[in-house]
Amino acid sequence: MVEPERIYVLIMAGGKGLRFWPLSRESRPKQLLPITGAGPMIRMTVERMLPLVPAEQILVVTGDSHLKEVQTLLPELPRDNIVPEPVGRNTAACIGLGAELILKRHPEGVMVVLPADHVIARPEAFRQLVAAGVVAASRQEVLVTLGIRPTRPETGYGYIEAAQSGQEIEGQPVLPVLHFHEKPAPETARRYLAGGRHYWNSGIFIWQARVIRRWIDRLLPDLARGLERLAPACGRPDFGRCLAEHYPSLASISIDHGVLERAEDVVVLPADMDWEDVGSWSAAGRFWPQEEKNAVMGHVLPLDSAGCVVHSPTKLVALLGVNDLVVVDTPDVLLICPKHLDQEIRRLVEKLREQGRLDLL
Amino acid sequence: MVEPERIYVLIMAGGKGLRFWPLSRESRPKQLLPITGAGPMIRMTVERMLPLVPAEQILVVTGDSHLKEVQTLLPELPRDNIVPEPVGRNTAACIGLGAELILKRHPEGVMVVLPADHVIARPEAFRQLVAAGVVAASRQEVLVTLGIRPTRPETGYGYIEAAQSGQEIEGQPVLPVLHFHEKPAPETARRYLAGGRHYWNSGIFIWQARVIRRWIDRLLPDLARGLERLAPACGRPDFGRCLAEHYPSLASISIDHGVLERAEDVVVLPADMDWEDVGSWSAAGRFWPQEEKNAVMGHVLPLDSAGCVVHSPTKLVALLGVNDLVVVDTPDVLLICPKHLDQEIRRLVEKLREQGRLDLL
Repeated sequence: MVEPERIYVLIMAGGKGLRFWPLSRESRPKQLLPITGAGPMIRMTVERMLPLVPAEQILVVTGDSHLKEVQTLLPELPRDNIVPEPVGRNTAACIGLGAELILKRHPEGVMVVLPADHVIARPEAFRQLVAAGVVAASRQEVLVTLGIRPTRPETGYGYIEAAQSGQEIEGQPVLPVLHFHEKPAPETARRYLAGGRHYWNSGIFIWQARVIRRWIDRLLPDLARGLERLAPACGRPDFGRCLAEHYPSLASISIDHGVLERAEDVVVLPADMDWEDVGSWSAAGRFWPQEEKNAVMGHVLPLDSAGCVVHSPTKLVALLGVNDLVVVDTPDVLLICPKHLDQEIRRLVEKLREQGRLDLL
Repeated sequence: MVEPERIYVLIMAGGKGLRFWPLSRESRPKQLLPITGAGPMIRMTVERMLPLVPAEQILVVTGDSHLKEVQTLLPELPRDNIVPEPVGRNTAACIGLGAELILKRHPEGVMVVLPADHVIARPEAFRQLVAAGVVAASRQEVLVTLGIRPTRPETGYGYIEAAQSGQEIEGQPVLPVLHFHEKPAPETARRYLAGGRHYWNSGIFIWQARVIRRWIDRLLPDLARGLERLAPACGRPDFGRCLAEHYPSLASISIDHGVLERAEDVVVLPADMDWEDVGSWSAAGRFWPQEEKNAVMGHVLPLDSAGCVVHSPTKLVALLGVNDLVVVDTPDVLLICPKHLDQEIRRLVEKLREQGRLDLL
């Protein structure tokens, strides 16, 4: 057992949610929206952890402009625990900052790093895995990743390749990581699935704050220097000003590329917890009610239409003879595209930006 | 020349406009909407005739529930000239009623029958044809039809087959009609186009009121008896009550089936006046501004999308990778269907009626 007061959670809520435009906007990214219908995703993320970690030990890093809404969504968190990033500087900077904040509160702190916008349908299994990961990370100074056992040859996720065998901690296998792999081609994804040694990279990590901080010192010295300038201000009244001054100059790199792929002692906990990143409208539609073979959040009248993903909370969408369309209605923008193009929605946002339609971004 | 005070216009504005749902509703059918962008179609129809016929000699028959809006759209027409049908009873009853009203005003009246929802891009040519038709009808007791010279093998219109030669009146050929044909198959339509003796049936007719009344007596005796019950009330204060009592029991049949296809002395004036019935969203789109290969009334952001017909006066419609879709946005309903199915939109309306969603009809 790890002393409860050592366990901290860092929720990374800095995403822009371009893939869920036009429902998500710069002012309301995916993590603030009830994409799956169950509630705002950041709220779900916090609620999943509360049985394990008290609100006082949960930190959230979010975009400057979302601070107020995040505070409203998470009233049980102390105000100081919700940290506004003046600009997004990718996950390594965010995690480095989180580590500094946690070290100030507990020099032996263990940090659980969670993205704010994932779905986990089996939260109890998730908490057991996290508890085992916390034990592993506190005992051995390892970097723990949660690897989702794949259920399909998904090409939209990165993969973690694990060794055949490892130790067992708290009844969970803990396997050394051999490689991280980028999003694979379909054939490769099928091979990964068949082989049984590759896991989806969930972006959920567990480690001691001082251990990840030490790896940043070794592997990302530029970022480390920036964090050193920030560290003294943590917890001080001028922290916000200090953040605004120094955060934008931090090196922007992901923790995967910057640290995990190059560090030693990285392990994976194979996880079965019905996890989804929900990175597209099609993926979100899997969680929605079905109406005559269409996934629907809202109101539709489908005739000879199937496979569509429709988000229209107020307006009736009458579909006649159309298939596999994504339809998203909002008060000022209506989006229509085929499902197989829903990863390219950001192109529309970019075009609007070129046209100066900042009101619609 | 025909004395100007003999010339009357009867505008038939009783259509339901189901093909333009959800923009058109029972309370706002096609003829009241600016489907082509140039103004409400009934207003355009009246304006086209005003250089030829004074407002006092233009009658409009419209649905009961549209009376107020038609009055507002046509302020120059005397109130008595706008006649509310308690129910639609097809064109023969409407024309029979119009003939009675005109006969009350001028026993030698010549009536020009016009649908309220057609587009005529060359109104001057149209007025010349009407003037010639009026002369022909006043001289010879013929039933004059305007036959549009086809410009494509259209399968959505009925056709009038004319004799090779006829007379010439006011510089316009006037040809005996041999047959009326229903909407043809594509192969037949191509043959009609190549042969040069078939014309689109425009639904525009010119005849003396007493002549068409006589044909109704001969060919539609049931309707004639109903009209006789109505006739004495024409122009009297109790006309409205009389209409409500007797109109619903009139025989419901089209003037084409009931009279024109069976009468003698039917002639056609070949017409070149850029006429369109505009019977579908695709047809309407031909009149709209083009935006990157899409027909647009409103606002779109098209990416890799072409051939779409988009009506969205207030909301931006973002299209990504879709082709040949009809998209119609209204405050409470959004319609999406492929262009080739836009003749089946009424099926959606029927389904809504079954579901009791009368608010959306």
